Amino acid sequence: MVDYGINFWGNNDFIINDGKVKVNYKHKPALIDIVQDARERGYKGPLLLRFPHLIKNQVDKVFKAFEGAIKEYSYKGKFKAVFPLKVNQMPNFVLPLVERSQDKCYGLEAGSKSELILAMAYTNKNSPITVNGFKDKEMISLGFSAANMGHDITLTIEGLNELETIIEVARELGEPYPNIGLRIRLHSTGVGIWAKSGGINSKFGLTSTELLEAINMLEKEQLLHKFTMIHFHIGSQISDISPLKKAIREAGNIYAELRKKGAKNLQCVNIGGGLAVEYTQHEGKNNRNYTLSEFSGDVVFSLREIAKNKKEPEPDIFIESGRFIAANHAVLVAPVLELFSQEYDEKALRLKKSNPPLIEELFDLYNSVVEKNAIEYLHDSLDHMESLLTLFDLGYIDLQDRSNTEVLVHLIIKKVIKLLKHKNYNEILQIQEQVQERYLLNCSFFQSLPDYWGLAQNFPVMPLDRLNRRPNRSASLWDITCDSDGEIAFNASSPLFLHDVDVTKEEYFLGFFLVGAYQEVLGMRHNLFTHPTEFSVEFDDDLNKGYELTNLIEAQTILDVLDDLDYDTKDIERRLKQHIEENQQLDSEGKKEMLGRLYVMLSENGYLRTITTKME
Amino acid sequence: MVDYGINFWGNNDFIINDGKVKVNYKHKPALIDIVQDARERGYKGPLLLRFPHLIKNQVDKVFKAFEGAIKEYSYKGKFKAVFPLKVNQMPNFVLPLVERSQDKCYGLEAGSKSELILAMAYTNKNSPITVNGFKDKEMISLGFSAANMGHDITLTIEGLNELETIIEVARELGEPYPNIGLRIRLHSTGVGIWAKSGGINSKFGLTSTELLEAINMLEKEQLLHKFTMIHFHIGSQISDISPLKKAIREAGNIYAELRKKGAKNLQCVNIGGGLAVEYTQHEGKNNRNYTLSEFSGDVVFSLREIAKNKKEPEPDIFIESGRFIAANHAVLVAPVLELFSQEYDEKALRLKKSNPPLIEELFDLYNSVVEKNAIEYLHDSLDHMESLLTLFDLGYIDLQDRSNTEVLVHLIIKKVIKLLKHKNYNEILQIQEQVQERYLLNCSFFQSLPDYWGLAQNFPVMPLDRLNRRPNRSASLWDITCDSDGEIAFNASSPLFLHDVDVTKEEYFLGFFLVGAYQEVLGMRHNLFTHPTEFSVEFDDDLNKGYELTNLIEAQTILDVLDDLDYDTKDIERRLKQHIEENQQLDSEGKKEMLGRLYVMLSENGYLRTITTKME
Repeated sequence: MVDYGINFWGNNDFIINDGKVKVNYKHKPALIDIVQDARERGYKGPLLLRFPHLIKNQVDKVFKAFEGAIKEYSYKGKFKAVFPLKVNQMPNFVLPLVERSQDKCYGLEAGSKSELILAMAYTNKNSPITVNGFKDKEMISLGFSAANMGHDITLTIEGLNELETIIEVARELGEPYPNIGLRIRLHSTGVGIWAKSGGINSKFGLTSTELLEAINMLEKEQLLHKFTMIHFHIGSQISDISPLKKAIREAGNIYAELRKKGAKNLQCVNIGGGLAVEYTQHEGKNNRNYTLSEFSGDVVFSLREIAKNKKEPEPDIFIESGRFIAANHAVLVAPVLELFSQEYDEKALRLKKSNPPLIEELFDLYNSVVEKNAIEYLHDSLDHMESLLTLFDLGYIDLQDRSNTEVLVHLIIKKVIKLLKHKNYNEILQIQEQVQERYLLNCSFFQSLPDYWGLAQNFPVMPLDRLNRRPNRSASLWDITCDSDGEIAFNASSPLFLHDVDVTKEEYFLGFFLVGAYQEVLGMRHNLFTHPTEFSVEFDDDLNKGYELTNLIEAQTILDVLDDLDYDTKDIERRLKQHIEENQQLDSEGKKEMLGRLYVMLSENGYLRTITTKME
Repeated sequence: MVDYGINFWGNNDFIINDGKVKVNYKHKPALIDIVQDARERGYKGPLLLRFPHLIKNQVDKVFKAFEGAIKEYSYKGKFKAVFPLKVNQMPNFVLPLVERSQDKCYGLEAGSKSELILAMAYTNKNSPITVNGFKDKEMISLGFSAANMGHDITLTIEGLNELETIIEVARELGEPYPNIGLRIRLHSTGVGIWAKSGGINSKFGLTSTELLEAINMLEKEQLLHKFTMIHFHIGSQISDISPLKKAIREAGNIYAELRKKGAKNLQCVNIGGGLAVEYTQHEGKNNRNYTLSEFSGDVVFSLREIAKNKKEPEPDIFIESGRFIAANHAVLVAPVLELFSQEYDEKALRLKKSNPPLIEELFDLYNSVVEKNAIEYLHDSLDHMESLLTLFDLGYIDLQDRSNTEVLVHLIIKKVIKLLKHKNYNEILQIQEQVQERYLLNCSFFQSLPDYWGLAQNFPVMPLDRLNRRPNRSASLWDITCDSDGEIAFNASSPLFLHDVDVTKEEYFLGFFLVGAYQEVLGMRHNLFTHPTEFSVEFDDDLNKGYELTNLIEAQTILDVLDDLDYDTKDIERRLKQHIEENQQLDSEGKKEMLGRLYVMLSENGYLRTITTKME
């Protein structure tokens, strides 16, 4: 059976059982049942399901891996971590995260004032806060307030001007001071010394010359004792571990050298984020070449070696991995609204008594194609189609001829696929591209999978049920935006096959997995589609089904969306009402009815209702 | 003087005069003065300036071009157009648009329910509404309501199922019916018959076979008289006009053929959008190879020829160009916060008594470089740097040596540039890349230029003043997000040079032009940065300055942003207050002060305040 690569990307969080995707936890409910639950409550558009137990799961895994490596190598430093809020700032992610990691030294990282406010409000006491990114005086003062509130906060300096501002604020506000981190500019990452990502031309960090200057400034101001951390970040979603090892070697040497320059309270190396998530659904197309335990082992081992060589204490290890923590906790579920098939059968063919010669030839090809000439005849028919379409443009053949062309070529392709079914798989895949089925999904890829649009990031996708039936349709996926970029096209090198369903009679849902990192806050309101309705799925053995849906946040209504754009929604309502009033043809009953329909519409979200026209 | 290509992209909307960019309208105010105006009112972050007169200007241009061509060719059809709301749904764009195009047959296109509500509320009577994209029964019923309200509305059918739903709704609701359009699937666009954009595998449109079926369905239901329009769209930002001409030939033939099949009220060919905007700042890098008058002339001429050949009436011409109407009306202004120079002079060099041999060599290279060996010595020094950085990673040289390496290589590059200044321009440009100045801008490219992130779309950018001074810094631009993608890197093939400014003493603003299409609604809240504060600039001769700033929409405050994410902001305030209360070190005066600072912060937006540390 087709498993949609769940063993590559599924992380054991989800399993296939009884032909359904199930949550691999406690009573193991099927996603399709959870979705039906939500839909019975009236939420019919796209859904975002969150699984808080998976958040805790990932935090635990990371701590276990690093603490394991520390034990294995008898390493003296401690392990600490923060979650970078930019990866997911949503309350139904952040609040379970902090609640469920209270037992660990696990805090939050902020990259802007708004994120710092969140960190100050919600970070567990005794857990760290780090502040990266560019900061003005106000933001630095806010960092001092956090220190005042008792937070273990480190301000990471991105440039010497920021350090000057820190010194200024320190003079004004006095103690307690926040800790100070210095972001170092590495040369060792990327390819070549001038490479962008994390390299010498990187957006962030201090050069060696600036680091030395910073030490001087801190010493002069008697603030050197607050300098506790160096930080680097070589980029998101590290696919190959070797640049990280190089970076750690470089950073480790800088750590040791800075201590030798007098930075005696420097005790922490913050290696940033980058721990990759495996998104692939296809064997041999892996996104990363290492395991979590290899990652943690390499970090601990490398730092130990450098500390030994340089005769400095083994530093605390600090990481800021976000994607690895957040990605798997959320699943986007999109109902299939419609299949666009162009599934012509011979009945659609309306040959005339006398047809253009090329159409007669196409008809012959269709009748005489057999296995050994299949590919040749297919190519011939595609050539003929091209010629016939040109003849149409030039006014030589009519619309019925053009239609017959489409139907015949389609029939030929279908026949070829049937003839070659048992043959070379790749050849068939290439042809499949030409008869792909289009599945229209009730969602917006711009809103819910922005990294697909911006970075061509693929997310694992699969149907939630029917997994004990072999899917036989080569599928491309369409969203409901008016944008041709809102399509995930069929790709012969990583094909997607889905089931043949009649959506007028049965429901069919696709799940997009690993969408918990970045996708929500980057979501775009293209065509004014809002975020999906979301639920958290909380497990509790005492409950009837073993789980409950909590933390509902509904997709915004149309009026709310327009209000967010700063429309005067009262004016919109007034105008629409007036248009109805001015209608001459409707009686007052009719007007009332129309107004009623309108208000229902305005109070709902803008997604489509599932088309059930023919279900009755 | 450097004009930043304003003659290529500026459209005569903006001109350079007295060293400043000015609005080429009425009193011709300088953008810098408008910006200062806004800043004096306390709006200090990034600003979005809208110019409503430019909206009208573009609509007028399009009508003039098409009506001119119609006259020139004695064409019998009419010209009509709509603005596709997805390109810009913001009230301060849409309301001036409809208000200032009342004298024209110019309406709105909607691609979703929310957009349709906007179109129904604001489209001028007697101007058309078109509805594209996928529609469910509710949305189709809404279209019937619009017809009832007296709107000239056309529902464009994307698939036969939609047509079935229209028939169903027509039976239920009765007359008046909306007009029906059929979106046709073209083969002629893109390269090769299976090409994606607008081609046979396109996301949208009916095949010939489906068109014939649609005609049958409409006829059977006695709705054929409501079928008035065929529609196609070959893609946004058409760079080359020839695919459009091909598409029109194909669509024209389909128009004629459908009329011959009995569609006697089919009288309109909707050629969609795609009219390109010229974004380039560099000669020879044009985004389009045609003018507006060539575009309109080609469309009118081609349709006339087909109508003549096929002996059918010349159809009305309908367009849905959005980018061309909206792009130029808005300018994003971003203050430069800081320059990150690594401008080392010899004083930064701290050579030891005894240096590693490669550093001695670097020092020799620096002292002995002359014009004829400049490039060779430059390459040698880059090689040496690579080796020295590796030696550092391996623990062989210390941080001071590493710093000396950085400084020496930098000094060598600077010296080489000086030596070669009068020589080959390209060679210098390649070196410039390595000593680019980083300008930190107080804005988010993710929020304000999402197409830069997603599509690598470049927007013209230039300083608002100092234009009578030659800019000498090769510049890369950084935004304030914590993301390495938030950088517009220096590019030797289309270089950007900016002025050397001391932002602690003087202000420096960059304007990004042509940002009025798509950028606002696609804006992403990365790091929780909100939309910029916006103003409209309305011109009025009676006013003192000749213009006024209206329609202020402030950037969201931090609390509003968090509220939008569905945080309980009362809880956040309560927690922060409590943290302050629990502080042992502060007295009650200190606590009050800190709380005050916190509330100010929460009531402001999350952008940085301009750094003026040293201005006093």
